[in-house]
Amino acid sequence: MSLKLTILGCGSATPTIDRNPTAQALQVLERFFLIDCGEGTQLQLRRNKIRPRHFDHIFISHLHGDHYLGLFGLLSSLHLYSRSKPMHVFCPSPLKEIIELQLKASDTRLTYELYFHELQGNEEQLIVETNEALVYSFPMNHRIPCWGFKFVEKPRPRSMKGEKIREYNIPFSKIDEIRNGKDFITETGRIIQNEELTFPAKVARTYAFCSDTIYDEQIISYVRNVDLLYHEATFAHDLLDKAINRYHSTALQAAQIAVKAEVKKLIIGHYSSRYGDITALLNEARTVFQNTIAASDNLVIEIS
Amino acid sequence: MSLKLTILGCGSATPTIDRNPTAQALQVLERFFLIDCGEGTQLQLRRNKIRPRHFDHIFISHLHGDHYLGLFGLLSSLHLYSRSKPMHVFCPSPLKEIIELQLKASDTRLTYELYFHELQGNEEQLIVETNEALVYSFPMNHRIPCWGFKFVEKPRPRSMKGEKIREYNIPFSKIDEIRNGKDFITETGRIIQNEELTFPAKVARTYAFCSDTIYDEQIISYVRNVDLLYHEATFAHDLLDKAINRYHSTALQAAQIAVKAEVKKLIIGHYSSRYGDITALLNEARTVFQNTIAASDNLVIEIS
Repeated sequence: MSLKLTILGCGSATPTIDRNPTAQALQVLERFFLIDCGEGTQLQLRRNKIRPRHFDHIFISHLHGDHYLGLFGLLSSLHLYSRSKPMHVFCPSPLKEIIELQLKASDTRLTYELYFHELQGNEEQLIVETNEALVYSFPMNHRIPCWGFKFVEKPRPRSMKGEKIREYNIPFSKIDEIRNGKDFITETGRIIQNEELTFPAKVARTYAFCSDTIYDEQIISYVRNVDLLYHEATFAHDLLDKAINRYHSTALQAAQIAVKAEVKKLIIGHYSSRYGDITALLNEARTVFQNTIAASDNLVIEIS
Repeated sequence: MSLKLTILGCGSATPTIDRNPTAQALQVLERFFLIDCGEGTQLQLRRNKIRPRHFDHIFISHLHGDHYLGLFGLLSSLHLYSRSKPMHVFCPSPLKEIIELQLKASDTRLTYELYFHELQGNEEQLIVETNEALVYSFPMNHRIPCWGFKFVEKPRPRSMKGEKIREYNIPFSKIDEIRNGKDFITETGRIIQNEELTFPAKVARTYAFCSDTIYDEQIISYVRNVDLLYHEATFAHDLLDKAINRYHSTALQAAQIAVKAEVKKLIIGHYSSRYGDITALLNEARTVFQNTIAASDNLVIEIS
């Protein structure tokens, strides 16, 4: 398994019984990222057996309530659990003031350091690098400032062929550099090509998250060739006027972005509460981009 | 039916799968009051088929997140539903600034007027009067400023005996004053006692809400003789030290307040997430006050 995405909420502004507002947990190896944090995210994490303490990085796309109202409760619970690790929140700048005001109103001095990192800029930016992944933000086109996020798994080293270690008597101290691509020189001076000693590294996988946005071809360059693209599809295309008016996209438009960006797979979500059954949205997207799936709460997608 | 209380959430700071944070809906005749509004209240209202638009008055006891984090989402949804009726929120003063900051961050100009009424004072205060009820706030004793609420049904007029209207040929214009206790004088000057013409009015019912608070006998005078008292019972009495340290009460203490205030019925709630099964808390309370029930999410209690 390379990347594992858990949909915690795939609804939009007004929640329904079946759909929580937007939140997703992304696991890259042992690293967990939280993407948006709508109301009820804590409970959804619990239902999906993901421990909040695993997260060190939370990404909030924009400050419509359905994308961040679960954050203060989550941060408060981590405090009550006596968290000591720092927490990093990447968000539009006003969120810092909101959270600090809420902390003050509840007379809470957190048990851990809370850092806010302001999302900004009109182009793709590297905002986080961990041992497992690189995370980029990029601007979307919504009624208020809004960002998408791209998660790029770091290239993994090649895998050693065990029998070659014995065959050429390779010392342990050389393993790391061979896994990173170096050839090996035996005691007799013979050069053994790296390809003979190792299996290729697993391909690094990529995931991009785009919610909320009007149809905007600027986004294509940011998400080009990703393995999985989440793109909002609030409305079916017969409500295009409404989509434009509210700076949202239709399922057809999400699929058009997927086609133009040549992504491997598309997942749609952020459905308007008017849709009880979203089969029509899924079918609409598939007319344009066949490899589309529909988000649903508690759905887990592995990109392996 | 006189009063109908729906428990929307009976958990405490950290939510569990079975227990949402605090929120209650109280119906007095056709009037709906919302008491606290923890995260997830919107969904709980939906599950209980209570329409948010029914509320004109929301009461927030204090600014720990588990008592108000569902409010902004609820207010936003009412905006998206194009509400036009004003909404009145009774709350500690910092909540106004928090909500206004959230509205600004989401660039939202509400479709309806939102009025904040600051809870204050060291004694019982009448804060709302509607056709159906009087609502009082009173101070509780918690780590941060916190208020309880008492809902007093307004006295109802007496009921006319239909056959007496015919017997004494009572004109329609006299009915209201007779229902309000006046005698009737016939055309021949004979005085007919009110008791002969009417049935007694139904007794006005009362409900008091006390969450969160340390054990405090000051509260007794505010809730004396109510028909139903909700009193927090975060811990069992073996954790009294923890209760005192966190300004909470034990189930035993909730029952002691019920006894001393001579209430008719006690309902306990706001259980710590450490208690999966709360039978022990209920039993503990019943050793002191037999007529105790345990709150659970979606429980409906009618005081008739």
